[in-house]
Amino acid sequence: MTSYVRAMYDFSGEPGSSELSIVTGEVLSVTRSDVGEGWWEGKNARGQIGLFPAAYVEVLSAAEAQKLNSSGAAAVPQVPDPFATSPPPRYDQTAEDWDDDDDWSDDNDTYSEIGQGAQKAPAAAGATSARIGDYDHKSLPGPPNDDTQSLASAAGTGAGGSGTVKKGMFAKSSDSYILGLSNTTEKIPESELAYITQVEDTIYQWTKNQSPYSVVVASPKKESKFKGMKTFIAYQLTPSFNNISVSRRYKHFDWLHERLVDKFALIPVPPLPDKQISGRYEEQFVEHRRVQLQEFVDWVCRHPVMSKCEVWHHFLTCRDEKIWKSGKRKAERDPYMGVNYCLAIFPPDRHILPSVIETPLETGIQFIHSMDAAVRNLNNISNDMAKRSLAQSKKEFQRIGDGLSDMAKALAIDERRAPTRNGIPLSESVGRIGGIFIGIGQTFGDQAKHDWIPLSDRLHIYRGVLNCFPDIFSTHKGAIQKRKDCQRSHDEGKMSNPQLQDVNRRTDVVTYTVMAELTHFKSERDTHLKQTLKTFINEQIKFYQGVVARLQEAARQIE
Amino acid sequence: MTSYVRAMYDFSGEPGSSELSIVTGEVLSVTRSDVGEGWWEGKNARGQIGLFPAAYVEVLSAAEAQKLNSSGAAAVPQVPDPFATSPPPRYDQTAEDWDDDDDWSDDNDTYSEIGQGAQKAPAAAGATSARIGDYDHKSLPGPPNDDTQSLASAAGTGAGGSGTVKKGMFAKSSDSYILGLSNTTEKIPESELAYITQVEDTIYQWTKNQSPYSVVVASPKKESKFKGMKTFIAYQLTPSFNNISVSRRYKHFDWLHERLVDKFALIPVPPLPDKQISGRYEEQFVEHRRVQLQEFVDWVCRHPVMSKCEVWHHFLTCRDEKIWKSGKRKAERDPYMGVNYCLAIFPPDRHILPSVIETPLETGIQFIHSMDAAVRNLNNISNDMAKRSLAQSKKEFQRIGDGLSDMAKALAIDERRAPTRNGIPLSESVGRIGGIFIGIGQTFGDQAKHDWIPLSDRLHIYRGVLNCFPDIFSTHKGAIQKRKDCQRSHDEGKMSNPQLQDVNRRTDVVTYTVMAELTHFKSERDTHLKQTLKTFINEQIKFYQGVVARLQEAARQIE
Repeated sequence: MTSYVRAMYDFSGEPGSSELSIVTGEVLSVTRSDVGEGWWEGKNARGQIGLFPAAYVEVLSAAEAQKLNSSGAAAVPQVPDPFATSPPPRYDQTAEDWDDDDDWSDDNDTYSEIGQGAQKAPAAAGATSARIGDYDHKSLPGPPNDDTQSLASAAGTGAGGSGTVKKGMFAKSSDSYILGLSNTTEKIPESELAYITQVEDTIYQWTKNQSPYSVVVASPKKESKFKGMKTFIAYQLTPSFNNISVSRRYKHFDWLHERLVDKFALIPVPPLPDKQISGRYEEQFVEHRRVQLQEFVDWVCRHPVMSKCEVWHHFLTCRDEKIWKSGKRKAERDPYMGVNYCLAIFPPDRHILPSVIETPLETGIQFIHSMDAAVRNLNNISNDMAKRSLAQSKKEFQRIGDGLSDMAKALAIDERRAPTRNGIPLSESVGRIGGIFIGIGQTFGDQAKHDWIPLSDRLHIYRGVLNCFPDIFSTHKGAIQKRKDCQRSHDEGKMSNPQLQDVNRRTDVVTYTVMAELTHFKSERDTHLKQTLKTFINEQIKFYQGVVARLQEAARQIE
Repeated sequence: MTSYVRAMYDFSGEPGSSELSIVTGEVLSVTRSDVGEGWWEGKNARGQIGLFPAAYVEVLSAAEAQKLNSSGAAAVPQVPDPFATSPPPRYDQTAEDWDDDDDWSDDNDTYSEIGQGAQKAPAAAGATSARIGDYDHKSLPGPPNDDTQSLASAAGTGAGGSGTVKKGMFAKSSDSYILGLSNTTEKIPESELAYITQVEDTIYQWTKNQSPYSVVVASPKKESKFKGMKTFIAYQLTPSFNNISVSRRYKHFDWLHERLVDKFALIPVPPLPDKQISGRYEEQFVEHRRVQLQEFVDWVCRHPVMSKCEVWHHFLTCRDEKIWKSGKRKAERDPYMGVNYCLAIFPPDRHILPSVIETPLETGIQFIHSMDAAVRNLNNISNDMAKRSLAQSKKEFQRIGDGLSDMAKALAIDERRAPTRNGIPLSESVGRIGGIFIGIGQTFGDQAKHDWIPLSDRLHIYRGVLNCFPDIFSTHKGAIQKRKDCQRSHDEGKMSNPQLQDVNRRTDVVTYTVMAELTHFKSERDTHLKQTLKTFINEQIKFYQGVVARLQEAARQIE
C-alpha cells in the first residue's frame, strides 16, 4: 500500500534543486523514504516528484491511506512502516549516494560507519506524528490492541538484546520496564547514574552535575579527501574539561542526536539545526550552522543527565578511529535505552500518591501546550520580521534614499542654471541625505542576523524540546495505565504483593523523571530564555541607536 | 457629444458617500460638471455614478471622445467645454445644493455671493490637462488654428471687460498683450506694481517686498447660523501687519485661490488642500486642514508679488460685508488679469537676446520636469510610509507584543505549578516587555503625523507649484512665437518699426517674469524645502530615540 504524508509546515524547495516545495495541509505520496538524512522523496497532486524534509510532514493513518489508495492514486514504492514487525535493514547496507557532493551521504568517510541512519526517517516520522495535544496513549508506538502478555514477550525478546530494531519498536513504551522485564546483566556505567531529589512539595530536580563544563564549537573548515574529490565541512569541538579539540561533521552530530533520542525517552533532546541540501558550503550558511550547533551543544552540556552520558563523552573526546568504531557499536547496542534508562535513575525512596501529583502534572501538560503555541507563534514572528528587515524595510529606506537622490539630481539641473553662491548647494545636501537613507536601508538588511535570526535559532531549540514533551507525557500515561492493570492482576490474585510493590516503585521512577524534567525546563527558561530575550532587546537597542546616529548625520548635512 | 475624462490618479471614494472610486487610466463619461468645488459627477464602465475630484482626471480630446461616442456609449449630460465660444452662465445662477450640509454649497451664507464658481470645474480641467512634459503651444486655451487677426478682435472684446468668461478664454494666451491690445485706462494700484532686477548674468529676481509680514491661520471653529441649522468651520487669520483677525471659511480660500490663478498667469499659485466631502467636521481633519491652509498662506506671504496684491489684502483684512462685496466685484473684473498683469511689471530696460536666454530657460524646463517627477515620487513614498507606519509597523510591533504576552501567559501556568522563589517571575518580565512592544507599536501608529504627513503636506504645495510651470513655459513659448510672427509682418512691411520694438519689449517682460519666477522658486527651495527636510529628519530622530528609550525600559524588566 502506498504511504501518504500530510505537510505540517510550508517548505520552499531550492529552485533548480531536487527539492520539492510543499504547502501545509498538502497530501503527498511517499516515493522514497531511504533518501537519508531526514529527507524523503514524494509526489504531489500535480505529479511533481522531489525531496522534502521528513520532519515537515506527518504520516497519514492506515485508514486515511487506505482511502487514498482505493481512490485510485498511482502506485508508488512503499514507505516502510516504522512500527512494522519485520525490521528494516539497518547495518551493513549501502546508503544510496543520491548527491555525491552531499556532506553526509559520503560513504567512504573515515567514520563511514557512523549513522547512515536507514532508520532515521521512520524515527523522525514517529517523533513528528506525536503532536501537542495528542497525549493519548494510542499515539504510543506499538500495536494499538496490545495486551500485557504480548508486550511482555516482545519485551523479553528486546531485553535479550537481539536487535536494536526491535528495541526501537518498544523503546518508548514503558510496559516492559514497569513489568520488570528489562533487567540486563550489563553494569550501568557510574557516569550514567542519575539522582533525583525533592526541592519542595511536588518539585523534584536532577542532582546537578558536579563537574560542569562547556564545549566550544568553532572554526568550521572545509576539508577534503581523495585529492579534493570529496569536500565537507568539519567543526572543531573543544570541551573545557580537557581542552582537546575533535573534528566533527554534521553527520556525526546527526548520528549522536539519534543515539540521544533513542536513549532518553523521558528527556527532551534539543533538535539539531534543520537539514539543508543546497548552499551548504556558503560561508554565511556554515557560520550560521556553527552557531546553531553551539546552541545544541550548550543545551546538552547544561543538562545534568545528558551531559554525563557515555555516548556524548565519546562524541566529545574520541580521536581514534578504532576506538570510535567500538564506541559507536557499544552505543548502538546500549541495553539502557528508552524507558529502560529508568534503571539508572534513583529518585527519592518514597511512593508518590497519584492524587498528589495529578494537579501539578496536569498544569505541566497545559503549560507545555500553551508554551508550544507561544513559541511557535513567536518563531513565526521572528521569521517574518527577519524576512521583513532583510527585504521590505531595507527596500523602503532604499526607496526613500533613491527618492531623495532623484530630487538631488533634479535640483542639480537648476543649480547649473543658477549656482548657489553661499553655502553648500541644496542638491549636494539632499544627495548626501539620500545616501544616508540608503545606508540605513543597508543596516535594516543586516539587522536580522543580530536580533531576529539568533532569537529564531533559540526558539528552534525550544520548539524541538517542547515537541518532545507530549511523547514523554504519553509514556508516563502508559506507565500509570500499566500500573493500574497490574493492580487489577494483583486484585485477581495473578500478581504477588512484592511484585506489585516493584511495579509501583518503577512507575514512580517514571513520574519522578517527568517531574524532574519539568523542573529542569523551568530553570532553563529562568536563565537561558531570559538571557535570550535580554540579548535580543539589547541588539534592538543597538540597532535603533545606530539608526538615530545615521539620522543625526543626515541632519548635519542640512545645518 | 458626451464628454469623457481619463483618471490620472487613483481616488478612493468614501464608502457610503456619493463619492466614486476611480483608478488611474480608467475612462469615465461626465454626467455633471456643475457639482462645484472641484467635484465632477461621472459614470464608469460598470455604470456606477458618483463624484470624483476634477483635478484627478484629464479631459479626453475631441477625437478620442468622438470615438467613444460613436462606439455607442450611453448618452449622458454634456460637460461644458471650458473653451467653448458661448459662455456658460456665471453670475446670478443658483448653485445646486447637492449636499445641504456642505460647508461650501451654502448659498445663504453672509458671503453668499463669493465664488460659487460654476466656472471652477472647467478651470480645473484646464489646469489638469496641461501636464508636465506637454509644453507644446497647442495645449494653450484657445482655438488651435487661431491667427493674429481673430485673437486681436477677441482681445478687444476682453479688454473691454464685457465678461470674465471671455477673459478666461484667453487669459493665459499672451497674444493680445504682446500685440499691445490689452491697454486699459484703469490705473494699476501702486501695491501691485512689480519690479525685476538683474542679479547676475542670466539671473533675474523680483524686488523683495519691503514690508514682509506673516499671517497666522488659527483656531478653526465650528460656527453655525440659522439657529444651528447650518454649521461650518471658520479659520481665524491674523496678519502680523495689523494684528486684526478675520474669519474665513474654506470656500473663501477657494474663491481667493481662483482669483490668484486668474490674475497671475506667469506666477505659480500654491494649491489649496485637497477637497474632501466626508469627515469635514472631525477634529483631526479640521486641524490638518488648518496646517495645510497655513502652508498655503505662508507661501503666498513669501512671494514678493502675490503678497502685495489687492485681492489678497482684501482677503486678509476685510471685515465689513459691504466692502467685501465691492472688493469681490472689483477683483472679479480686474483688467490686469492673466498675461495682462505684465503691464504692471517693470523689468530691467534692456532687450534680452533669445540666444542668451535659451539655454538657461531650457535648463529650467528640464529641471521642472525632473523635479516634478522627483516630488511626485517622494510624495508617493511619504504617503506609503505614512500608511505603513499607521498600519503595518504598528501591527507588527503589536504582534510582537502580543506574542510575548501569550508567552508570558504560558509561563504563568507553569509558575503556578512551580513558583519562582528568587526575583521577579519570568512570566511577569516577559509580560511587561510584551506591553512595551505594544506601546512601541502605538508610537509607530502616531509617528506619521509628525514626520511623513507634514512632509507630504509640503510636497503637496511643491506639486501644485510645479504643475503651474508647464503652462507658464507654454505661455512664454506662445509670446516668443507671436514675436516671430510680428517680425515677419514687419519684414513684409505690415508692421512699423516702433510697433515691433514695443512687441519686443513686451515679449521681454514675459521672459523676465519667467526667469524671476525660476529664481524665486530656487530661493524657496534653498530655505523652505531645506527647512522641510530638516524638520522631517529631526522628527525621525526624535521618533527613533523614543523607540530606543522604550526598548531600554524593556531591557530593565529583565535585569
